[in-house]
Amino acid sequence: MQYSSSSSSKKVEELVPKYDLFIQKHLFPIEKEIIYGSFKSNLPRLQALREIAKKEGLFAPHLSLHEGGLGLELMEFARISEVLGKSPLGHYIFNCQAPDIGNMELLHQFANEMLKEKYLVPLQRGDIRSCFAMTEPNNAGSNPVHLSTRATLEGNEYVINGHKWFTSSADGANFTIVMAITDPDNPNPYQRASMLLVPLDNPGYQLVRNIPIMGDIGDDYMSHGEVTFTNCRVPSSYLIGKEGQGFALAQERLGPGRIHHCMRWIGICERALDLMCRRALDRELDPGKPLSSQQTIQNWIAESAADIKASRLLVLETAYQIQHFGAKSAKEDISTIKFFVSGVMMKIIDRAIQVHGALGITDDTVLSFWYRHERGAKIYDGPDEVHKSVLARRILKSYSKP
Amino acid sequence: MQYSSSSSSKKVEELVPKYDLFIQKHLFPIEKEIIYGSFKSNLPRLQALREIAKKEGLFAPHLSLHEGGLGLELMEFARISEVLGKSPLGHYIFNCQAPDIGNMELLHQFANEMLKEKYLVPLQRGDIRSCFAMTEPNNAGSNPVHLSTRATLEGNEYVINGHKWFTSSADGANFTIVMAITDPDNPNPYQRASMLLVPLDNPGYQLVRNIPIMGDIGDDYMSHGEVTFTNCRVPSSYLIGKEGQGFALAQERLGPGRIHHCMRWIGICERALDLMCRRALDRELDPGKPLSSQQTIQNWIAESAADIKASRLLVLETAYQIQHFGAKSAKEDISTIKFFVSGVMMKIIDRAIQVHGALGITDDTVLSFWYRHERGAKIYDGPDEVHKSVLARRILKSYSKP
Amino acid sequence: MQYSSSSSSKKVEELVPKYDLFIQKHLFPIEKEIIYGSFKSNLPRLQALREIAKKEGLFAPHLSLHEGGLGLELMEFARISEVLGKSPLGHYIFNCQAPDIGNMELLHQFANEMLKEKYLVPLQRGDIRSCFAMTEPNNAGSNPVHLSTRATLEGNEYVINGHKWFTSSADGANFTIVMAITDPDNPNPYQRASMLLVPLDNPGYQLVRNIPIMGDIGDDYMSHGEVTFTNCRVPSSYLIGKEGQGFALAQERLGPGRIHHCMRWIGICERALDLMCRRALDRELDPGKPLSSQQTIQNWIAESAADIKASRLLVLETAYQIQHFGAKSAKEDISTIKFFVSGVMMKIIDRAIQVHGALGITDDTVLSFWYRHERGAKIYDGPDEVHKSVLARRILKSYSKP
Amino acid sequence: MQYSSSSSSKKVEELVPKYDLFIQKHLFPIEKEIIYGSFKSNLPRLQALREIAKKEGLFAPHLSLHEGGLGLELMEFARISEVLGKSPLGHYIFNCQAPDIGNMELLHQFANEMLKEKYLVPLQRGDIRSCFAMTEPNNAGSNPVHLSTRATLEGNEYVINGHKWFTSSADGANFTIVMAITDPDNPNPYQRASMLLVPLDNPGYQLVRNIPIMGDIGDDYMSHGEVTFTNCRVPSSYLIGKEGQGFALAQERLGPGRIHHCMRWIGICERALDLMCRRALDRELDPGKPLSSQQTIQNWIAESAADIKASRLLVLETAYQIQHFGAKSAKEDISTIKFFVSGVMMKIIDRAIQVHGALGITDDTVLSFWYRHERGAKIYDGPDEVHKSVLARRILKSYSKP
Repeated sequence: MQYSSSSSSKKVEELVPKYDLFIQKHLFPIEKEIIYGSFKSNLPRLQALREIAKKEGLFAPHLSLHEGGLGLELMEFARISEVLGKSPLGHYIFNCQAPDIGNMELLHQFANEMLKEKYLVPLQRGDIRSCFAMTEPNNAGSNPVHLSTRATLEGNEYVINGHKWFTSSADGANFTIVMAITDPDNPNPYQRASMLLVPLDNPGYQLVRNIPIMGDIGDDYMSHGEVTFTNCRVPSSYLIGKEGQGFALAQERLGPGRIHHCMRWIGICERALDLMCRRALDRELDPGKPLSSQQTIQNWIAESAADIKASRLLVLETAYQIQHFGAKSAKEDISTIKFFVSGVMMKIIDRAIQVHGALGITDDTVLSFWYRHERGAKIYDGPDEVHKSVLARRILKSYSKP
Repeated sequence: MQYSSSSSSKKVEELVPKYDLFIQKHLFPIEKEIIYGSFKSNLPRLQALREIAKKEGLFAPHLSLHEGGLGLELMEFARISEVLGKSPLGHYIFNCQAPDIGNMELLHQFANEMLKEKYLVPLQRGDIRSCFAMTEPNNAGSNPVHLSTRATLEGNEYVINGHKWFTSSADGANFTIVMAITDPDNPNPYQRASMLLVPLDNPGYQLVRNIPIMGDIGDDYMSHGEVTFTNCRVPSSYLIGKEGQGFALAQERLGPGRIHHCMRWIGICERALDLMCRRALDRELDPGKPLSSQQTIQNWIAESAADIKASRLLVLETAYQIQHFGAKSAKEDISTIKFFVSGVMMKIIDRAIQVHGALGITDDTVLSFWYRHERGAKIYDGPDEVHKSVLARRILKSYSKP
Repeated sequence: MQYSSSSSSKKVEELVPKYDLFIQKHLFPIEKEIIYGSFKSNLPRLQALREIAKKEGLFAPHLSLHEGGLGLELMEFARISEVLGKSPLGHYIFNCQAPDIGNMELLHQFANEMLKEKYLVPLQRGDIRSCFAMTEPNNAGSNPVHLSTRATLEGNEYVINGHKWFTSSADGANFTIVMAITDPDNPNPYQRASMLLVPLDNPGYQLVRNIPIMGDIGDDYMSHGEVTFTNCRVPSSYLIGKEGQGFALAQERLGPGRIHHCMRWIGICERALDLMCRRALDRELDPGKPLSSQQTIQNWIAESAADIKASRLLVLETAYQIQHFGAKSAKEDISTIKFFVSGVMMKIIDRAIQVHGALGITDDTVLSFWYRHERGAKIYDGPDEVHKSVLARRILKSYSKP
Repeated sequence: MQYSSSSSSKKVEELVPKYDLFIQKHLFPIEKEIIYGSFKSNLPRLQALREIAKKEGLFAPHLSLHEGGLGLELMEFARISEVLGKSPLGHYIFNCQAPDIGNMELLHQFANEMLKEKYLVPLQRGDIRSCFAMTEPNNAGSNPVHLSTRATLEGNEYVINGHKWFTSSADGANFTIVMAITDPDNPNPYQRASMLLVPLDNPGYQLVRNIPIMGDIGDDYMSHGEVTFTNCRVPSSYLIGKEGQGFALAQERLGPGRIHHCMRWIGICERALDLMCRRALDRELDPGKPLSSQQTIQNWIAESAADIKASRLLVLETAYQIQHFGAKSAKEDISTIKFFVSGVMMKIIDRAIQVHGALGITDDTVLSFWYRHERGAKIYDGPDEVHKSVLARRILKSYSKP
C-alpha cells in the first residue's frame, strides 16, 4: 500500500466555500420541511433551487465541462460530495444524487449512442430521474450470484420477469436499469447476468409499493420501491454493455459509488458533530454551566472529530487509488471504507441524538432522519460483515505466495 | 450490597405461559398493523382484546385482588412485565402500561378519596387513560430542579401556567398529573414543586401537538404531547400528596417505574433475539448454508443472550431490594439498571436489524418500531450519563466515612 | 431458564467479614513482595499464614466438615471465593487454589481408596501440592479431541509418552493428573482419553522449564510448567475413574472450576475498582480537584460497578443451577460466565491501570500482576470465542424442535 | 483543516525495503533474546549491528547529511520509523530511539555551541546515550504546571533539587535533560520552568532504582529510572534555550516526538497483524481447517488492517502539517493521533495475543513485550483522556468567534 497525495486542487478549494454557503443559505432552512413532508409536493421548490445552482455554475459538479458540469476529478468531486452531504437535499439539488449519478456513469461508459441520446442527456440535465433494480426480496443481497430475475431474448426483444425491491427512487423515475440473468447455465456464475434499461412506462413493469422504511413510506425521489417485471419487453438495443457483463458493470459502478456514499456520510458526520457542539454549548445544566462542560460530551466530540478525520483520509486515499490506478486496484480499500465509515457515521449520529436529549428523538432536528434512513448504510452494497471477510481473505491470501 | 433471593413464586410460574400464549396468539398477528397504523382507529379491536384478557383472568396483573387485579408482588409482576414486553401492545392490553401504571400507583398511595373514586377507579378498570406532565422544553430534563411551570393558590383553586412536552399519551387521555412549582422561594429546591391532577377537558389546558418522534406523529395512546397550561384552574383538592412533595412523589413513582420499564425492555430484547435467531436460521447465503452458520452472527446471539440474562438478574435483584427494603435503599441499583439495560436493549435491537438485512430497516418487522421508539430509553428518566455519575458519586462517597 | 434463589445463607454471611478481615490484615501488606519476588523463598511465611487460617477455623472452606473444611455448598463457597480473589494469595493461603481444588474434587469423586489415602488426604491438609497436565503445545487447546499424549497398558502398568505445557504449578508439586489417549481407535473421540495420577518423582517425568509468562518465569506454585512424559510408568491402579472417561471427568472438573475461577475474577474486579476509587480520590489534578471529579473516571467507576454486579449475579445463578440440577444442566450458563466475566475483568483491570497513570504500569501496585497474569482468562479452559459459539449453537438448536 | 499531500518521495520509497530487509535479517532472529534478557550484556552485539547499519548507509536516518544522517524530512522519516517499529530494537540500532532523538532535536535547535560539541555530536554518533527527566512521582503528569523540582541560580551555577521518575533509559546514560522550576513566582505558570543539561557523573545526581514495569526491572537502555537531584550543581551555561522556556521547549519537543512514537506504534501494529495472520494460517482447529477460516478472526484482521491504515494516514497528515506549517498549527492533530493510535495499537496487540492462544501470553513471542511495555502509551505524554478534552475544547472554542 502506498500513501497518497492530496494537494487538494486550487479549483476545488475555491468551490468548497461556495457549495457550503449554498447549502447553508438555501437548504438548511427548508430541509426539515421537505424530508419530513412530501417530496413530490415540494418538487417546484426544489426545481427553483436547481435553477439557482445552474445560474451559480454549481450544477452537476461531477460531469465534464462539455456535459454541462464542472469537470472535477474523482478526488475533487469527493471533497464537494462531503459538503453536499451536510444536507439531506445536497446531492439532489446539484443532480449528483444516487442512484442517478451511478446510472450516469454507467450509461456514459457503456450505453450505445441511442440510449445516451434518449436517456443520459436528459438525466444529466436533471430533466428526468432514474433508478436501479438489483436487490431481490428472496435472495440475500450480499451474494449477487443469487438472482431470480430472468431476461430472455425473444427475437430482438428481451422479455424480463422478476421481483425486485429497494429500487430506490423508483416512484417518479423515468427509467430503471435492471440486473437480470440472461445466461443461467454459464459455468461462471459471474457471467450469467446482464444489465438492461427499462423505461418505466412499460406495461410489464409495476411499482407494487413504496416500502415503508423506518416509519416513512416516502414518495418520489425519497422512496424505495418494490417493483415487478412481468413479461416486460424491451428492445435488445436496451442492453447496457454486453450480455453477461452484468456483474462486471455492477462492480464498476460500485467503486466510485462507494466514494460518493462515503463522502456523503462524512458530510453527515460533520453536520451531526456541528449540531452536537451547538447543542452542547447552548443547553445549560445549571445557569452558566453548559452541557459542553461535561467530560463525557467532550469525549464524544473529540472521538467524533478523530473518526471523521480518519474517515476522510481513508476515503480520499481510496479515491486517489481509483482515480490513478482503477477501481480494481482499490478493491481492498473500497471494502475498508464501506465498513469503517458506516460505523463511524452511525456512532456519531447516535451521540448527537444523545446530546440533544428528548429533542434528539423528535423530528425537530435532521438527526432523526439520518438515524433512521442511514441505518441501511451498514446493510446495502453488501453488509459490513461481508466486506470485513472480503478484506481479511485478501490479506490472508497475500501470505500464500509460492 | 447483598445478593438476593428469587424463588420465583409458583403463582407467577403458572401465569407466565398463559401471558406468553396470549401475546403470541392475539398480539403478534396484529401488532404491526396497529403500531404502524392508527392507534385510535384500532381502539375497538384493542378493547375486544382487553375483554378477552379480563375473561381469562389476566387483566391488570399489578393490581391487588380487591381492585380487580392478580395481587402480584413487584418481583412477580416484573416477570410478567418481561413477557408482555415482547409485543409493543402487551402492557396496554392488560392495562399496565406507562404512564397509567405509574399514575395508578401514585393515586393509590397519595390521592384523597374523592380523586380515587373519580379517577383511580375508572383508570384501573381501563375505562379512561391518563398522562403525566413533567418534562419542559426549556429546561434540561435531567435536572428536575429546573421547572418553569407554576401553580399558584388563589382561594381554593390552583392556577397553573406552564409549557410541557413529552407528555406521553396525552392525546385521548382523561386527565394528567402535572408537576408545578408551588413554593418558588423554598430554600430547599427539592421542596418547591407539587403534583396536581388536571382533568383534560379543562379550558386552560391545551394539547398543542403530538410531537413527531422518529418519523411518527402517532395518535391516542401512542403519542407524545406538547401541552400548555394557561391560567388553568383546578380545585385545591386536586393536589396529590401535600404541597412541596412533588419531587418526593416523583422519586417514589420512579422506583417501581424503572423496574416496569426495564423488564419491558428485557422482553423487547428477548423478542429481538428470537427474531434474530429465526432470521439467521431461515435466510440462506448459499443453498444449505444459513446465516446462522456465520460466526459473527453466532457471536451476536451469544453476547445478546448473556446480556439479557445479566440484565434480568440485575433488575430482579433490584425489584427484590425495592420490595423488601424500599425504593430508597435501592437507589444505586435503580440507577444501575437504567443505563445497563437500556444499553443492552439498543445493542440487541441493532444487531437484530443487521441480521435481517434490508428487511430489517423496513416496517415489515417490529424491529423498526423499537429501533426508533426505544431510542428514548437512554434519554428519558434521566439520561444514562447522569445515572452513571449518580452511581459513581455514591460509590466514591462511601470512602469518605470518618 | 429460571431465575434462581440466593438467600445467601446466614453461615456464609458471617464468614465473609472474617475472610475479608484476614486478607486485609495478613495478605494485602505482603502480597506484592511475594508475587513480584520468589514464591519458593516465601514458603515458610506462607505456611505460617496457613497455620493462622487453621487456628481461626477458616482453612479449606470448600471441604466437608469431616475432611477438615467448613462444609460449604457451592454457592456458599462461591461467595467466599470472591473475597479471597481480592488478593493474589487468597486462595492459596486457604488451600482452595486451582489446580489443587479441582484435583481434590476429582480424587474425592473418582479415585480409589488407595489414591485417596496416599494423595488426597495430604493434599487436603495442604501438605503437598499437585498439578494438572492437559494442554499440549502442538494441539489447539480449544479442541480437546486433539491430544497426542498416549498411555499404553503394558501388564499392570501404564506407559505414558507425551508433551504438555501450561501445567500450572508443576514446579514443586508432588503429583500431577495427566490426560492421555488410552484408546486411540475408539470411534467416539470423546471416549479415547483417560486420566492418570503420576507422582512427580517418577523418572519418566521431566519438568522441562517454567514457561516465561508475560515477563515472569515464576517458581513453585506461581509457575506454569512445560513437562514431558517419556516411557513414564505408573501402576494401572493410578487410573482415575475408568478408562475412556478422561473427557467426561474433565467436563465434570470444569463446571465447579469455572465457578471458582469466575468468583475469583470478580474478587479481582472488586479490588481493582477499590484501587481505582482510592487513587481517584487521592490524586489531585489541581489543589482540591481530585481525579474523581472527572466524569470519565466516574463513568469507569459506574460501569465497572454495574458489570461487577451483573457478573456476580450471573455466576451465583450458575452456581445455583449446578448445585441443584448438576453441571450438565448448566452447560450454557457455564459458557456464558466464562466469556462474560473474563471480559469484564480485563476491562476493569485496564481502567484501574489508566486511573493510576504511570504508577499503574509499575510493579508498585498489584494491578500489573493481574493485567499480565489474568490475560490468560480469555484463553484457557477454551477461548471466549469457542464459548460464544457453543452458546449460540445451543440456542439455535432449540429452534429445531420437530 | 485541509487534506494533505503525500507523494511519498522516491528517496524514501527506495529506503523502505532496505530497512525492512535489515530488520528482518538482523533483528527478528535475535530480538526476543535481548528484550527478554539483559540489554547491557548484549551491548557488543548491538554495537556490531550499528556498525553494519553505518556501513549500509542506513544509520541515523533522521539527521541531516552533514551530521551523518540521511537528510530525511519529517514525513519521510515517519515512513522509516514505521518500518523500524516492527522490531523492539529497530530505532535503537539506527540511533533514532526515544528519548535520544528528542534530545538531539532539542540540542540541535536550542543548545549553545559548547553543549552541542560536547554532548550532541557524540550522541548523534551513537557514542553516548541520554535521558529526559520531567515526570515527578508526586505530581500528576498530565498537568505540567505542577512540578516540584527546583533549579536555583547561585553565582554562575544552577543548584537543582528534585525527585523524578520514568526517566527512561537513565541507566547507562551519559547525561540527562531535566525540567526544573527556575522562576516559581512568575504569574504565568507556563514560564516558570527551564531545561538544564546534567551530566550523570554529577555527584548530586542519583539513579535510585530502575522502576519495575510490568514485571521487568530492565537495564541500560531498556529501563525507566527513578532519579534524584540533591544540591546538584551545573554551570549556568548548561541551560538549554532561555530561562523560563522549559514548557515551550517541551511542547516543541513533543510535536515531532509524537510523530515518531505514533509511527513506531503503527509499526508495532503491522507486526502484530502479521503475527496474527501467520498464526491464524498455521494453527489448525481440525486437520485442514486453520484458525483463519473463523469469521471472528477474519473480523479482527479486517478491523486491524482498517485501523492501521486510518492511523497511518492520520499521522502522516499530521507530519505534513508540522513539516509545512509548524507544530503549533498542528496542535489538535497531535492530540488526535495520540489517543487514536494508542487505542488502535493496544486493541491490535490484544487481538494478536488472543489469536495465539496460550502461546500469546508466553514470552515466546514478541507480543508479551508490547502488551506490557506499550500499555504506557495511553498514559505518557498526557493520558488519552487529557488529549480528548484538549481537542474537544479547541473545537468548541471555534464556535465562540465573535
